[in-house]
Amino acid sequence: MQFHNDFDSIIASLAARSERARVAVVCPHDEHTCEAVADAIKASLADFVLVGDPARIPFAADEHVSIVNIPDNDAACAAAVALAREGKVDVLMKGLVNTDNLLRAILNKETGILPRGTVMSHITAAQIPGRHKLLLFSDACVIPFPNDEQFAAITGYLIDTLRTLGVEQPRVALTHCTEKTSPKFPITLSYAMLKEQCAAGAMGNAIVDGPMDVKTALDPESGAIKGIVSPVNGDADAIVFPDIEAGNTFYKTISWLAHATMAGMIVGTQVPVVLPSRGDSSRSKLCSLALAISVARH
Amino acid sequence: MQFHNDFDSIIASLAARSERARVAVVCPHDEHTCEAVADAIKASLADFVLVGDPARIPFAADEHVSIVNIPDNDAACAAAVALAREGKVDVLMKGLVNTDNLLRAILNKETGILPRGTVMSHITAAQIPGRHKLLLFSDACVIPFPNDEQFAAITGYLIDTLRTLGVEQPRVALTHCTEKTSPKFPITLSYAMLKEQCAAGAMGNAIVDGPMDVKTALDPESGAIKGIVSPVNGDADAIVFPDIEAGNTFYKTISWLAHATMAGMIVGTQVPVVLPSRGDSSRSKLCSLALAISVARH
Repeated sequence: MQFHNDFDSIIASLAARSERARVAVVCPHDEHTCEAVADAIKASLADFVLVGDPARIPFAADEHVSIVNIPDNDAACAAAVALAREGKVDVLMKGLVNTDNLLRAILNKETGILPRGTVMSHITAAQIPGRHKLLLFSDACVIPFPNDEQFAAITGYLIDTLRTLGVEQPRVALTHCTEKTSPKFPITLSYAMLKEQCAAGAMGNAIVDGPMDVKTALDPESGAIKGIVSPVNGDADAIVFPDIEAGNTFYKTISWLAHATMAGMIVGTQVPVVLPSRGDSSRSKLCSLALAISVARH
Repeated sequence: MQFHNDFDSIIASLAARSERARVAVVCPHDEHTCEAVADAIKASLADFVLVGDPARIPFAADEHVSIVNIPDNDAACAAAVALAREGKVDVLMKGLVNTDNLLRAILNKETGILPRGTVMSHITAAQIPGRHKLLLFSDACVIPFPNDEQFAAITGYLIDTLRTLGVEQPRVALTHCTEKTSPKFPITLSYAMLKEQCAAGAMGNAIVDGPMDVKTALDPESGAIKGIVSPVNGDADAIVFPDIEAGNTFYKTISWLAHATMAGMIVGTQVPVVLPSRGDSSRSKLCSLALAISVARH
């Protein structure tokens, strides 16, 4: 398995595949989404099924593009989800349609793509200038305050994704405002249980440690100064956040301060789903697609 | 009132005062604390009362330094707090003693320095390379999950501190993972109430707005892209965080990524308290002292 330390490496490896992945895009009616689709086709990342109003889709059908004529947004969401459910596409991507409408189709118990009893979560991958490898984290978008089961699922999804990206022994930091495990902060008890399960092999060859703060997770010197000895060793491949407020704060702060390139996808669903937000650049959308395709076609 | 856009400006303005503030330091028995004390004396920031074991205090008494011989840590905490309670010092600073022990003395109902019914909180001030002014935020250290009253107190302390630093009309962002006010996230209801109170003048001439995410608070372009019109306008002087996990994540992330200079102090107490942590540089300790002195002697 090739190790990918940045998005270009992921994109190049997808382009080298003999068979392209198939991505359904719901309502590609806006400039940014269409730019990402055009970029992805140009980069030989995927073939596309564009579901929406043909009058608003600036693509012609060809060997890499099919167009499904469904002008109604909700019907387009349902149709794209059905394609995923039937295994006809490997990834879903949202265009100019409300996230809530697409999520309703995804979560529909009869016709959706979230298997019963499965946790749906979100993974962000960040390429931070000056850092030697990608940093994955979760959950900045979907689960407000994870419970035990959700923390285990989040950690599992991060580890699976890291393996897909060629990280043999993923290092995952469970973050919290201190290093103490205490009933005052119930999440630290969730962390303790999770660590035990991981130490017993529940997640395979992976290092899962915490609670530790973000700096201790990412900066080898920080732990040393504090006298913290952790196998994560200031070199985390992924961070689990205690709640959505912390995850979102991290997302927005590294995007602001570090001009990081961010990619994101929903996981737990039958196929990964890319839900770009208004402010995302087309580069970020392309990287999200690449990340989702890597996981989907692994 | 002079506007201070960085720590050097604060330090220079304190040095120019005719009368020095008095700072009690509890157990200045470690190199880092003593370095900060020596730096502060050199910078003409304050005079010091060093409370602890004289054998472990590498200072001689002189016009700027008094030494109080109390080798027992808990007794030293109590004695320093008594000095603050009696108005004999303007600021407290922790040396080589457990935070919990000092807090116990501070919070003692009979002999402590937290007035009954007053919210104790923590303010961080960050000088971020490339940013045009200091950024204050709260609460990264003390209050885990603020309630309505605590959010109001936190916001008030930030505004008071900003005024001391010469900001005429402080802009405060109430941050959250989205811009929506919803009962799903009770803190957004706290924010709505607080905004109303501030709009009615409860905090004087200040702009308090939210919920908004961290990037929208700090980056003028981000709000514009999202179509968010806020009087904070991507130019926040201070950020209120929804919980300690988010506040701590921000603290550790900007310290890691931006090599920011961070200063911090406990507020709400009769005198501000500086509680440096193990990893803080002596520059950070000096800036914390300067911040606390500014507020104390205002």
